[in-house]
Amino acid sequence: MKHFTSVQDVKNISDLVLEAQNIKKNPFLHQNLGKNKTLGLIFFNSSLRTRLSTQKAAQNLGMSVMVMNVGQDGWQLEFEEGAVMNGAAAEHAKDAIAVMGQYCDILGVRSFPELKNRDLDYSERVLNSFIKYANVPIVSLESATLHPLQSLADLITMEELKKTACPKVVLSWAAHPRALPQAVPNSFAQWVGAGNYELVITHPKDYELAKEFTKNAMIEHDQDKALAGADFVYAKNWSSYSDYGKIASQDPSWQITSEKMKLTNKAYFMHCLPVRRNVIVSDSVIDSPQSAVIRQAGNRVFSAQVVLKNLLENN
Amino acid sequence: MKHFTSVQDVKNISDLVLEAQNIKKNPFLHQNLGKNKTLGLIFFNSSLRTRLSTQKAAQNLGMSVMVMNVGQDGWQLEFEEGAVMNGAAAEHAKDAIAVMGQYCDILGVRSFPELKNRDLDYSERVLNSFIKYANVPIVSLESATLHPLQSLADLITMEELKKTACPKVVLSWAAHPRALPQAVPNSFAQWVGAGNYELVITHPKDYELAKEFTKNAMIEHDQDKALAGADFVYAKNWSSYSDYGKIASQDPSWQITSEKMKLTNKAYFMHCLPVRRNVIVSDSVIDSPQSAVIRQAGNRVFSAQVVLKNLLENN
Amino acid sequence: MKHFTSVQDVKNISDLVLEAQNIKKNPFLHQNLGKNKTLGLIFFNSSLRTRLSTQKAAQNLGMSVMVMNVGQDGWQLEFEEGAVMNGAAAEHAKDAIAVMGQYCDILGVRSFPELKNRDLDYSERVLNSFIKYANVPIVSLESATLHPLQSLADLITMEELKKTACPKVVLSWAAHPRALPQAVPNSFAQWVGAGNYELVITHPKDYELAKEFTKNAMIEHDQDKALAGADFVYAKNWSSYSDYGKIASQDPSWQITSEKMKLTNKAYFMHCLPVRRNVIVSDSVIDSPQSAVIRQAGNRVFSAQVVLKNLLENN
Repeated sequence: MKHFTSVQDVKNISDLVLEAQNIKKNPFLHQNLGKNKTLGLIFFNSSLRTRLSTQKAAQNLGMSVMVMNVGQDGWQLEFEEGAVMNGAAAEHAKDAIAVMGQYCDILGVRSFPELKNRDLDYSERVLNSFIKYANVPIVSLESATLHPLQSLADLITMEELKKTACPKVVLSWAAHPRALPQAVPNSFAQWVGAGNYELVITHPKDYELAKEFTKNAMIEHDQDKALAGADFVYAKNWSSYSDYGKIASQDPSWQITSEKMKLTNKAYFMHCLPVRRNVIVSDSVIDSPQSAVIRQAGNRVFSAQVVLKNLLENN
Repeated sequence: MKHFTSVQDVKNISDLVLEAQNIKKNPFLHQNLGKNKTLGLIFFNSSLRTRLSTQKAAQNLGMSVMVMNVGQDGWQLEFEEGAVMNGAAAEHAKDAIAVMGQYCDILGVRSFPELKNRDLDYSERVLNSFIKYANVPIVSLESATLHPLQSLADLITMEELKKTACPKVVLSWAAHPRALPQAVPNSFAQWVGAGNYELVITHPKDYELAKEFTKNAMIEHDQDKALAGADFVYAKNWSSYSDYGKIASQDPSWQITSEKMKLTNKAYFMHCLPVRRNVIVSDSVIDSPQSAVIRQAGNRVFSAQVVLKNLLENN
Repeated sequence: MKHFTSVQDVKNISDLVLEAQNIKKNPFLHQNLGKNKTLGLIFFNSSLRTRLSTQKAAQNLGMSVMVMNVGQDGWQLEFEEGAVMNGAAAEHAKDAIAVMGQYCDILGVRSFPELKNRDLDYSERVLNSFIKYANVPIVSLESATLHPLQSLADLITMEELKKTACPKVVLSWAAHPRALPQAVPNSFAQWVGAGNYELVITHPKDYELAKEFTKNAMIEHDQDKALAGADFVYAKNWSSYSDYGKIASQDPSWQITSEKMKLTNKAYFMHCLPVRRNVIVSDSVIDSPQSAVIRQAGNRVFSAQVVLKNLLENN
């Protein structure tokens, strides 16, 4: 692979998951691969899991890591082509990115959507600026519309836990006090839809995701029907795609509770974290033995490591 | 030791101090011990000495270090069990901590008290959440009520400088414009009280520390009497424990000056730093050859290193 | 060299540039030099290039790096000698610096001018406090009045690109919406003036730099005349030195455009970055093949690495 920004950068998903599982068994086997190589982690937004798991993955491979919190450690960047820069932004992204590419062998970048202008967000302006100007492989640490390192970790987790060849996976919306990106559900739908799973997405009307990501999914607006017989329940809030960035419902009845889990085939509960307890999911579910959330987070290391390994080998 | 959060985690204080002194002589001797091991340093509050000395200690042992400034790099955490999380906090501490434990072999955590609710602060809710949920050894980088890495460094320093077998050690309160935690004096009293020292604590009335930490100390409200014949003078401000978190006195006469040092047995002056000069201590004292404050700070490396070494060996 | 804070710390500039060029060819040759050595990077101000390039340089030499954002990670420091510290500052610089010197083998420090009090800024109080109190070699990561790592990278770049033995180098002021330091032009004039170059500085009246830095330069207030036959054009804004820290002109006609570049001897365009596009320089110039700005930024690694190498070898 040349970059890692979506499932489309992956030749064979099953092979990648298998390789990640092998790395998990022996995480320090390829420590010479990253010798004298530097990973730059560029954060336009906050991060805990991604920040730490990607650092850990790079260190497992013998890489050096440099972290840059844009805005906090540096200054505001301009993304508009041809801008007359007499405003707040002190540097154009194309210059800052080209420079970071001089110092790093691979760059990871996190940049959330603003949830104001759908076309702008879905153009992935920030991520694509990195691809265009950095001249080194780019890893998405969650972009405006996708979170592929999370989805890969989700697949690793489901492959570890699945009890049938083609499990039923239900992605369920749940209410949340703030408007959140669609990146995690988009990406999950894209990766699960490309794999050997039966994918059902359930959400209130007006929460349809962009069709390009959900073409291999069944949409079911009745949450109970969706959950029936599920092997995995993946809860996540997202804001509206059609009425872009808006909260169309705060219906608390979508919370995943023990009662709802009884409808499933003793499903595992999944969430990318951070999660608002007793809003998205009840304590009784997330604290149960069927909760896979900490395992998912743990697998973020091996998701990142297999990606970095491939980028180091192929670039 | 399993964790390092107070003197009670230490089997034999003298042995630990001696081991730290040996590490100081040869700091790079155990570089294989930390190979492929990661230390996570989690800061809920600002830090200079602790941040840098603990990193340095880990690197001396061959460990990788990841630093996380909670709030600044991440988001607000919920600590209440069973909370319905529809407020400001985006993640429950139990989830964030369990995740950090997946990425690190040892976690250090700094969390100051809020100085509003004594029972809450003294329950050490943050530190104990780490112990409960991280599933890896926890090192206190200063908690709500104790600062054991500082106290261990203080003992290393006094053992280097002492001129008698059982020195007289005076912990003296001094006025300060802001309300400060009791962690340093609590911890100092606990460690010195458990060692071979004569400990006297002097402070204005209404500044009594929690009795559990001062049981081996003599309390003397007359500062001059306390200082008479002292071998070490440890200055520190703290806010009231009885009228919790309040400033009961701003009497400037408690400042440690050259005149007061004349009452002592050519005592060494100590402070954990940061210190407000000419408020807590006069320039003439802290800049004199009898000032041990930079030596104390230097010994923070070996205090952290001996603790990390023990945790790596025993876990 | 003992410290690196200006060209005056350098015995022989040509030798240093040559050594940097050799390091660039083989950046990992001296990895044992930095073994068990720690570089502390102390930032009082924002940084992107300096932050990342200096980290990279240190890692190339096998050093460990610790980064400290003063204010953000720590607290406000007092610089006044003898201050009664009952205000906002929690620690005196002399104590904080002495402590950081205990943990690091070399300290880098970035501290911009306040542009309020010229004598205070030009006394380099912060940088000189580090030299006075740290007890380890100090590297300027841009001080109030100079930016020597940038200037050294600029010389490396010009030596790579020059087509004549003694190129004509034009440093041109250009307008900017904010008042900026004089550190980059001061330092550039000092380094280029000490080398084998013909240096011309062009700026509106009232923008004269401090004479101590420009004694080997010709000052020409007519920008077109200055640019005639130039081999290198270095654009930079700075605020007034005579009417200290003020903006004396915002004349947009000083912007470096393609038309102006036609006056030159097919000059290379240079800037230290960050640069405001279409304010300081037009897109057509900075995006042209004659733009050397990314190369300059790339050379920051080797500028820092040759300095760190010399400090490690001589201290």
